[in-house]
Amino acid sequence: MASVGFLGLGIMGKAMALNLLNAGFDVTVWNRNPEKCTELVVKGAHQGISPKDVAANCDITFAMVSDPDAALALCQGPDGVAAGIGSGRGYVDMSTVDDGTSKTIAHLITQAGGRFLEAPVSGTKKPAEDGTLIILAAGDQSLYDDAKPAFDVMGKMSPYLGEVGQGANMKLVVNMMMGGMLSIFSEGLSLGQKAGLDGQQILEILDAGAMANPMFKGKGAMLLNEDYTTSFPLKHMQKDMRLAVALGDQLDQPLPTAAIANEAFKQAMKAGFADEDIAAVYKVVK
Amino acid sequence: MASVGFLGLGIMGKAMALNLLNAGFDVTVWNRNPEKCTELVVKGAHQGISPKDVAANCDITFAMVSDPDAALALCQGPDGVAAGIGSGRGYVDMSTVDDGTSKTIAHLITQAGGRFLEAPVSGTKKPAEDGTLIILAAGDQSLYDDAKPAFDVMGKMSPYLGEVGQGANMKLVVNMMMGGMLSIFSEGLSLGQKAGLDGQQILEILDAGAMANPMFKGKGAMLLNEDYTTSFPLKHMQKDMRLAVALGDQLDQPLPTAAIANEAFKQAMKAGFADEDIAAVYKVVK
Amino acid sequence: MASVGFLGLGIMGKAMALNLLNAGFDVTVWNRNPEKCTELVVKGAHQGISPKDVAANCDITFAMVSDPDAALALCQGPDGVAAGIGSGRGYVDMSTVDDGTSKTIAHLITQAGGRFLEAPVSGTKKPAEDGTLIILAAGDQSLYDDAKPAFDVMGKMSPYLGEVGQGANMKLVVNMMMGGMLSIFSEGLSLGQKAGLDGQQILEILDAGAMANPMFKGKGAMLLNEDYTTSFPLKHMQKDMRLAVALGDQLDQPLPTAAIANEAFKQAMKAGFADEDIAAVYKVVK
Amino acid sequence: MASVGFLGLGIMGKAMALNLLNAGFDVTVWNRNPEKCTELVVKGAHQGISPKDVAANCDITFAMVSDPDAALALCQGPDGVAAGIGSGRGYVDMSTVDDGTSKTIAHLITQAGGRFLEAPVSGTKKPAEDGTLIILAAGDQSLYDDAKPAFDVMGKMSPYLGEVGQGANMKLVVNMMMGGMLSIFSEGLSLGQKAGLDGQQILEILDAGAMANPMFKGKGAMLLNEDYTTSFPLKHMQKDMRLAVALGDQLDQPLPTAAIANEAFKQAMKAGFADEDIAAVYKVVK
Repeated sequence: MASVGFLGLGIMGKAMALNLLNAGFDVTVWNRNPEKCTELVVKGAHQGISPKDVAANCDITFAMVSDPDAALALCQGPDGVAAGIGSGRGYVDMSTVDDGTSKTIAHLITQAGGRFLEAPVSGTKKPAEDGTLIILAAGDQSLYDDAKPAFDVMGKMSPYLGEVGQGANMKLVVNMMMGGMLSIFSEGLSLGQKAGLDGQQILEILDAGAMANPMFKGKGAMLLNEDYTTSFPLKHMQKDMRLAVALGDQLDQPLPTAAIANEAFKQAMKAGFADEDIAAVYKVVK
Repeated sequence: MASVGFLGLGIMGKAMALNLLNAGFDVTVWNRNPEKCTELVVKGAHQGISPKDVAANCDITFAMVSDPDAALALCQGPDGVAAGIGSGRGYVDMSTVDDGTSKTIAHLITQAGGRFLEAPVSGTKKPAEDGTLIILAAGDQSLYDDAKPAFDVMGKMSPYLGEVGQGANMKLVVNMMMGGMLSIFSEGLSLGQKAGLDGQQILEILDAGAMANPMFKGKGAMLLNEDYTTSFPLKHMQKDMRLAVALGDQLDQPLPTAAIANEAFKQAMKAGFADEDIAAVYKVVK
Repeated sequence: MASVGFLGLGIMGKAMALNLLNAGFDVTVWNRNPEKCTELVVKGAHQGISPKDVAANCDITFAMVSDPDAALALCQGPDGVAAGIGSGRGYVDMSTVDDGTSKTIAHLITQAGGRFLEAPVSGTKKPAEDGTLIILAAGDQSLYDDAKPAFDVMGKMSPYLGEVGQGANMKLVVNMMMGGMLSIFSEGLSLGQKAGLDGQQILEILDAGAMANPMFKGKGAMLLNEDYTTSFPLKHMQKDMRLAVALGDQLDQPLPTAAIANEAFKQAMKAGFADEDIAAVYKVVK
Repeated sequence: MASVGFLGLGIMGKAMALNLLNAGFDVTVWNRNPEKCTELVVKGAHQGISPKDVAANCDITFAMVSDPDAALALCQGPDGVAAGIGSGRGYVDMSTVDDGTSKTIAHLITQAGGRFLEAPVSGTKKPAEDGTLIILAAGDQSLYDDAKPAFDVMGKMSPYLGEVGQGANMKLVVNMMMGGMLSIFSEGLSLGQKAGLDGQQILEILDAGAMANPMFKGKGAMLLNEDYTTSFPLKHMQKDMRLAVALGDQLDQPLPTAAIANEAFKQAMKAGFADEDIAAVYKVVK
């Protein structure tokens, strides 16, 4: 089994690295705050001294950090991944970054002789712990093949989507559909209740039919309770919808339903719900 | 166990009456073409000589015919249900009829002293056979209570929705959401493929996440195969979306996403796809 | 010059009848409250004793009342227009009525041997006084030809639009465009001001270019002053937009821009602005 | 009267410079291809040897070139405007450029000590010749005051709109409204004709009422003749609508009508009408 590195031991990263360790991988970890490495070292992981060091000593290095700036910082500079990766080794960035950052990182790694994959994930803490993430991999195909055994440990599916950028595109497409579904769901739930139907019954009937899905179930309960505790911040959804509509502009693909759902999310932004859960779009619909 | 009547032995009605019979109900059947009664009589059903006769001799009479005119015809005239129902007995119309017809039937039955429920169903042949229909009941609540054991045999759920008209409203709300979901789904699938993603992979990723639902799975396969074999005719969906938007007008409930999805279905009507499956909306999106 | 009758001497009708009188027509007037006839009788008009009487004694009788019920009442009963019109004489209803009422009146008049035109007008008090109304005439073409000299006195244009119903359709089409224009105008004015531009300058620049129109000028000033004094009630506009979108449904004509503008007006209805001017749609946009 | 420079003698620039000359300004001209200067020199203009030379010798230098690259090239390098402008003199770029280019040019000029205005125009050849352009000026206010006499010669209005960028924003706002108006106009014209009304009559009725505007008149005739000869290319309109909607995203200003009109223009792009006139949006509506 290959030796793997893991950079970034936040809530997600720690769970993912732990799964790799438990599956028998030889894991070397690194975190900006090194204290977070202890729990994994106790369970058998090695501790790297820098991203460069990890990249230089492992067949494949995975990274999971919180934002594009942090993802870029891991790769640059004298202690960065690019300085250590050398020829043939692989780097898999599983953070969610924008298209531009992903391409910059890809360039840094390949210029240094390394192989690169972007692999943003769909799923949060629980799926990370359970090894049931959805991993959207795109980039170097030979690296994808080499990383597959590790992906199989961390996720329940990890399709190879093509060249760098397609992981991000897939995420936009999926989130655009999510925004549209949430918008029509909010309208239906609101219309039904105004017509005198019981919200809970609407949810139960939906849940028994061909449209039944975990999101309607989960968000539906939130809407009826007027609970908008943030799980996926509304402003991030609106950003993704805007980018998806812009991608449609670029490809001459009309997207009227998405464009109008985007406007609903913008209305929610205007009303001050940017930091609440995506479910808060309901508040401007009802 | 109560004695029940069943009027209308088409594909749906025959399966539903058979389930009642198998569950031990004392069933009296009637069909415009009496030959269709034979199969059920062989298995122990009685055969009524007219709707009036059935209604007069059973505690509760169910009906399942193909359109509003047929539903109305069952109740009117010297041989109709209203002529036989008398005081206290119940009539449950499970056909899909418009609001006006439902109210006319309700009036005929209650004027004659009977109790009435509208109970349109969601689901087709297979769920009818399996006893897994979704039954949207509305009207007389005591009749609902009396009919519940029979509903439990025919369907997997049969919520009581309120006064006559609410069964139809629930169907509009649910179908409006279906139309909106199909519209955003078509846009996402089309955008993804134009961006170079693989349609099958998009479906698999959707099916692994919080939006996973049987409709995306079923219709998704149809879209990728360009198979628009009619299961739910597009023109019926467009009619329901139009009525849902009109209901929103009546209740001052803005429904922008639904209104725009309705326009997509109208575009499909204009393009000549009225009699194809609702999935054919994809053809005007892609 | 033909002898003409005029039924209904409200703000509009009095001004129109006066113009006919001043132009040399032989005018017989009638009003439910007969006192209103005095001013015209003083200037040379005859006073009829009932709608029947006027219709029986004039070549062409015009009517201008405030709503469909009043328009219908003029024609029905022993004293109504239909009772007096006889063969060959003409009746021109210039009130704004719905399609159904217009067809009922047409039927009453033609059954009685008369000829009928619907001729709703566009324009209010000032154009009525100035003889610059826009008259949307539809129905009997020979009557249109006979009424043309009178139309020329009352309006600045009076095109013949076809069979009964086309006057109402033209009004829907025109009002639908008005609603759409007002919606995009509100969005532009709001966007510009949020971007730091001066509202008055936006109006001046629009007024200098190819889009310059009296409505933007008039409503623009109202929007900037937050003055929504009712000239055309918002709820009537929303009704017309709803009917226009419904006409599109009937004709398989997609109308996405109109459908979305209709939703904006519905949002304004929901917000409680039904009785304010159509300009109040701006309040839900900004 | 101030000495003015004029860079760029294309169709627009030549007409504008000629108007300045005829009004008595002391004009120095320059063009990349110097032959184009002859006509103006014959009429009394001086000929500059480079942008730097013109900028160094005139109080205010105006520029009118065809695209952002050319506009930027005028300012950069040893022969560019920035090299010559020195302290206190003014530069007015009347070309249509994007926001980023405008800010780069502003930076180059102000770093060199000069004053800067962006002043994109609305209007084409004929208004340039007639001196009836609409000039959207933004940037240095003292320069605006100094340039006003020249603007008065070249245009019929030239409001001062604020800091650099506001000229471009005003253009987006105005063009967004134009796109929305064209979209609802196309829908109305199409609906009316499907309902059996005459297209020409619809145009005449619009032209007689409060919505009357030169654009409906001009484009309306084109639509009825199915003549889409390019005056304003559809792809440029779609770009402006996209940028306007993006500006709305940035400012949390919902723009549903504009977003949907944008989708109509995208549909026209998809259908292959990018290079036809904006009127060609009608082809995907009807």
